[in-house]
Amino acid sequence: MNFEEKTIKRQEIFKGHIFTVAVDDVELPNGLGQAKRELIFHKGAVCILAITPEEKIILVKQYRKAIERLSIEIPAGKLEVGEAGSEEEAALRELEEETGYTSSKLTLLHDFYSAIGFCNERLRLYLADKLVKVENPRPKDEDEVIQLLEVSLEEAVSLIESGDICDAKTIMAIQYLQIIRK
Amino acid sequence: MNFEEKTIKRQEIFKGHIFTVAVDDVELPNGLGQAKRELIFHKGAVCILAITPEEKIILVKQYRKAIERLSIEIPAGKLEVGEAGSEEEAALRELEEETGYTSSKLTLLHDFYSAIGFCNERLRLYLADKLVKVENPRPKDEDEVIQLLEVSLEEAVSLIESGDICDAKTIMAIQYLQIIRK
Repeated sequence: MNFEEKTIKRQEIFKGHIFTVAVDDVELPNGLGQAKRELIFHKGAVCILAITPEEKIILVKQYRKAIERLSIEIPAGKLEVGEAGSEEEAALRELEEETGYTSSKLTLLHDFYSAIGFCNERLRLYLADKLVKVENPRPKDEDEVIQLLEVSLEEAVSLIESGDICDAKTIMAIQYLQIIRK
Repeated sequence: MNFEEKTIKRQEIFKGHIFTVAVDDVELPNGLGQAKRELIFHKGAVCILAITPEEKIILVKQYRKAIERLSIEIPAGKLEVGEAGSEEEAALRELEEETGYTSSKLTLLHDFYSAIGFCNERLRLYLADKLVKVENPRPKDEDEVIQLLEVSLEEAVSLIESGDICDAKTIMAIQYLQIIRK
C-alpha cells in the first residue's frame, strides 16, 4: 500500500517568529486525487522533567494566551535558530533560566510531535536529576511571568485530575514517573 | 502575582478549514510592557485508546504531511462544527470510521491541550473497551489512506522505542495502559 502525499504546490501564508504557516496542494496516493493540507512549521522545543534532591517535581505556573488561562507545566522552551543537534544544551539553558537549577545528568525520555495532524513541532522530553542550584542563573526571557512550584508525584497527579495541569507534555512526564516508580 | 496578558489588538492572518491563525498584541502584567503572541485556533479533537476483546490496542498507520513520513497512532479525529459538548459521539464516529468497531463503554482518560504554547487544540482521550464489530461501518474520509494494526502493550512500547510511534497522544495512551496494567 502506498501512503505518500506528494506536494504539488506550497503556498506560504505567514512567516512568524514562532511558526510558519503554509497550505500544500497534495497528490493523494492510489489515484485518490488531490487534497489541501494546512500546515504549521515550528523549530522544535525541549521540555524537562526536573527532579529535586528531595524527589519533588519542579513545575512552572504561567499564563497561556492561546487558551486564555493559567497553566502548570514542566519547564520548556523553544529551540533557537541553529540549535538543532544541541537539544541538550537548550534543555539545560531552559532549566537554568526558568528554575535556577542545572543538572549533570540529562536522559532523553521521549522524542515526539505535539500535534502531528497539522504541525511539525518536535519535542524532546528530558529527565534531569542530580540538580544543583546555579549561583547566578541566566535570567529568564523578559516577557515571561512565571511562578515555580515543587510538588510530589501524588500532588502532580492531583493537579492533572483538577485540570490545573492540562498539557500533553506535562501529563506525559508525570505518567513516566508513575511508571518507573511503581 | 498577576499573570494575565490582556489583548490590545488581534490581527487575523489566516482562516482555514483546520485552524485559524492570529497575532495578538498583548499588555504584559506587572508593567512589563507589550509583546506579540502568534496563535493557532483549532476546533478540538478526540482520540481513542481502543482495546479489542483479545486485549490488543488498535492503531492506525498513516502518512502525516506535516512531518513528511508515516506515523502509527491511536484513532483520532477533529471535532466538526457544532460538536462541542458531544465529544463522545465524535469519538464513536471516528472509532467506527477508522476501525469498523463501536463501543458501549467510553471512559474519558485525559482532557488536554496538545501544543499549549501557541495553539488551543483541546484533545479528549477516551478509553473504548467492550468493542463490537459494526456490520456496515460508516466509510472513512475520502482523503484518508490508513492501515490498521492490532498490537499488544509490549509491542506498542517497542513501537515507541523504535520511533514508529512518535506522537504525544499515542504515547500518552500507551503510558496510561502501562500504569493501569502494572
